[in-house]
Amino acid sequence: MPDTRIADIRVTPIAFADPPLLNNAGCHEPFALRSIIEVETESGHIGLGESYGTLPVLDGLAKATPLLIGMDVTDLNGLWARCGQVVGGTMMQYIGQERLLPRIVGAVEVAMWDALGKALNRRVVDLLGGQVRETVPFSAYLFYKFAGHHGGQPDDWGEVLTPSQLVDEAWRMIDAHGFNAIKLKAGILPPEEEIEGLRALRAAFPDAPLRIDPNGGWTVDTTLKLLPQLDGLIEYLEDPTVGIDGNAQVQAATSIPLATNMYVVETAHLPPNMAQDAFRVILSDHHYWGGLKASRDLAEICRIWGLGLSMHSNSHLGISLAAMAHLAAATPNLTYDCDTHSPWQTDEVIEGGKLPFQGGALTLPDGPGLGVTLDRDALKRLHQNYLDCGIRVRDDATEMKKHRPDWQFGRPKF
Amino acid sequence: MPDTRIADIRVTPIAFADPPLLNNAGCHEPFALRSIIEVETESGHIGLGESYGTLPVLDGLAKATPLLIGMDVTDLNGLWARCGQVVGGTMMQYIGQERLLPRIVGAVEVAMWDALGKALNRRVVDLLGGQVRETVPFSAYLFYKFAGHHGGQPDDWGEVLTPSQLVDEAWRMIDAHGFNAIKLKAGILPPEEEIEGLRALRAAFPDAPLRIDPNGGWTVDTTLKLLPQLDGLIEYLEDPTVGIDGNAQVQAATSIPLATNMYVVETAHLPPNMAQDAFRVILSDHHYWGGLKASRDLAEICRIWGLGLSMHSNSHLGISLAAMAHLAAATPNLTYDCDTHSPWQTDEVIEGGKLPFQGGALTLPDGPGLGVTLDRDALKRLHQNYLDCGIRVRDDATEMKKHRPDWQFGRPKF
Repeated sequence: MPDTRIADIRVTPIAFADPPLLNNAGCHEPFALRSIIEVETESGHIGLGESYGTLPVLDGLAKATPLLIGMDVTDLNGLWARCGQVVGGTMMQYIGQERLLPRIVGAVEVAMWDALGKALNRRVVDLLGGQVRETVPFSAYLFYKFAGHHGGQPDDWGEVLTPSQLVDEAWRMIDAHGFNAIKLKAGILPPEEEIEGLRALRAAFPDAPLRIDPNGGWTVDTTLKLLPQLDGLIEYLEDPTVGIDGNAQVQAATSIPLATNMYVVETAHLPPNMAQDAFRVILSDHHYWGGLKASRDLAEICRIWGLGLSMHSNSHLGISLAAMAHLAAATPNLTYDCDTHSPWQTDEVIEGGKLPFQGGALTLPDGPGLGVTLDRDALKRLHQNYLDCGIRVRDDATEMKKHRPDWQFGRPKF
Repeated sequence: MPDTRIADIRVTPIAFADPPLLNNAGCHEPFALRSIIEVETESGHIGLGESYGTLPVLDGLAKATPLLIGMDVTDLNGLWARCGQVVGGTMMQYIGQERLLPRIVGAVEVAMWDALGKALNRRVVDLLGGQVRETVPFSAYLFYKFAGHHGGQPDDWGEVLTPSQLVDEAWRMIDAHGFNAIKLKAGILPPEEEIEGLRALRAAFPDAPLRIDPNGGWTVDTTLKLLPQLDGLIEYLEDPTVGIDGNAQVQAATSIPLATNMYVVETAHLPPNMAQDAFRVILSDHHYWGGLKASRDLAEICRIWGLGLSMHSNSHLGISLAAMAHLAAATPNLTYDCDTHSPWQTDEVIEGGKLPFQGGALTLPDGPGLGVTLDRDALKRLHQNYLDCGIRVRDDATEMKKHRPDWQFGRPKF
């Protein structure tokens, strides 16, 4: 087989346009940051990865990638060990301080799988254990949003702050992509207003599985009071309140499964979660769990412990989407449709433009590895965006205060 | 890359000479049964596996293997799904009734990895995530034994039923192979005699980590009474009493880690074990956990939950030993030297004879895949043994009664 030792790794920070979406931590800035990772083997095969573009990740990648030269792309043990030599500490996420190491590993690991697949003329899904589903179902990810960025023109989604605006947003997204399940990013408006939004969605989409994600924005008491309204309305309740302890109190009071992408985000969080029965659904994310292999391990743990499994997303482009799709297609126990921000993005970094959803689901792109190719003109343009935009870390709170100077962060808030 | 779809699978039952080793369930019969699995790809590469040779496994393999033709050797999800279509039920092990499916999957899966490695000219250790140790340490696995099989001549190990005979056995095994840790198969003699044996071993080998495995042969009360004698003497206590509940009572009373290959032997046993803190060391075994990938998953679970990890063995030949070594070499958190019955076996089925231990450790054999080649003359001879010996399931109890007609099985017994 070809020589799959790593000859070179290139990391290119990019910034792409992002709408003014709201969440408990604030408002999306005009640009979202990502990094594009290229792992080139001695055989000349180039594997692609996409991950966070904030400074701590870029710094970590700058430290770690020189140590990976000469290592085989199959050497995942070596990847963890070598990155662990130089990457310590944590990274400020909007969900808290989380370990940097799995993020650095995950960024490079996907590109290693892609390079291996290209070298072997095999798809990543096959290398991850084999395809178990023809298509990967995604959900309609609804956000409250401002009409436009501060000081800018309204975007074509317009303002979404009321139940009827929310239903309009859902129709547009579902008409365009065919999604079945609907997720509402919450923790922004008073909970009663958000639940009114859910009820409007239920009326408009009688058969759609609904979810709500307050991002830890509710107190335990508030959540307990809201449970009767949510029972029978939603398929899962995502991170209603803060922490494993708080959510365990909620889970003990309801048969609605609690889901998380905030408080079980590293392997160290799994034992306390299982011991306390806090969350019964894990929203996995290969970008912070340490890559595709670590995410397959997580899936197996969910299967063994009887937990549900789906996928979280941040704002992302097509390399991440392809990696999510290959991973999901190789995961037998994916129990809920995956999340994606893809419908909110207008930029793309892969050739051929955005991967299309059909009936809300993605068919794996053809070709070896992840099946996607870098659009180098787009990469150049998006890297120039990065150089020009001035954003270096994500800061939704500061952006929010431009729109609403009196806004204060609170978690829980309601 | 070569066409690695499965073109043919051959399963050959074999029987090899086994000495009259004692355990809580009885005495080893004159022959131990194994199956040799050959997975041949469309590209003509032949992968090797070795597993149980008892009838339920042979029946399960006969049912499952026809469904695997045409499947790629990378398709581990397909392996579980296809085997699951025709393999149900349980298998009588000397430890109880255990699910057959992971045993069937494990038997074929190793041969699939070996075939993939041979097709790619890569070692299995590299395909499993990369080599983390140059050599794999094994322990001296001591047994009480009769001088010879019932009605037969004494073997050259002779009788081992007293502390001094045990020390002689240990010296011989350690002189020959250089092992560091020492494990005593127990649950046979009254516990005080076995602990006397441990003390004699401690005197003869002051620095050797010691272990004792009563195979569930002691009551909870007996074990609790013995703990003060074992404290400071052993590195772990293996399956002292019966079940997760019973061993949890013991673990709650001691800082000696409890180890198991009897009561946490399937993924379904992991949640109750973690919830009850019964065993703090898992002795994994790819033959019953479902192969090398499942064993890597188990290792990761042990790492996450802070459990120790080592490896169990049954009577086996060189293909199993090579697979254990590749797996161990790819497992960062192997915390205790592995078990092996290899020193007790005089037959071999791989070319070049038995893999040698140096300083108690195994160096991975050279070459792609597992690095071992089938000795077809030996296979023929050992298959003839199988046809001639008349043994079709393992039955240590009946064998024991030939030696000691009054012997009665008891678990717990003391």
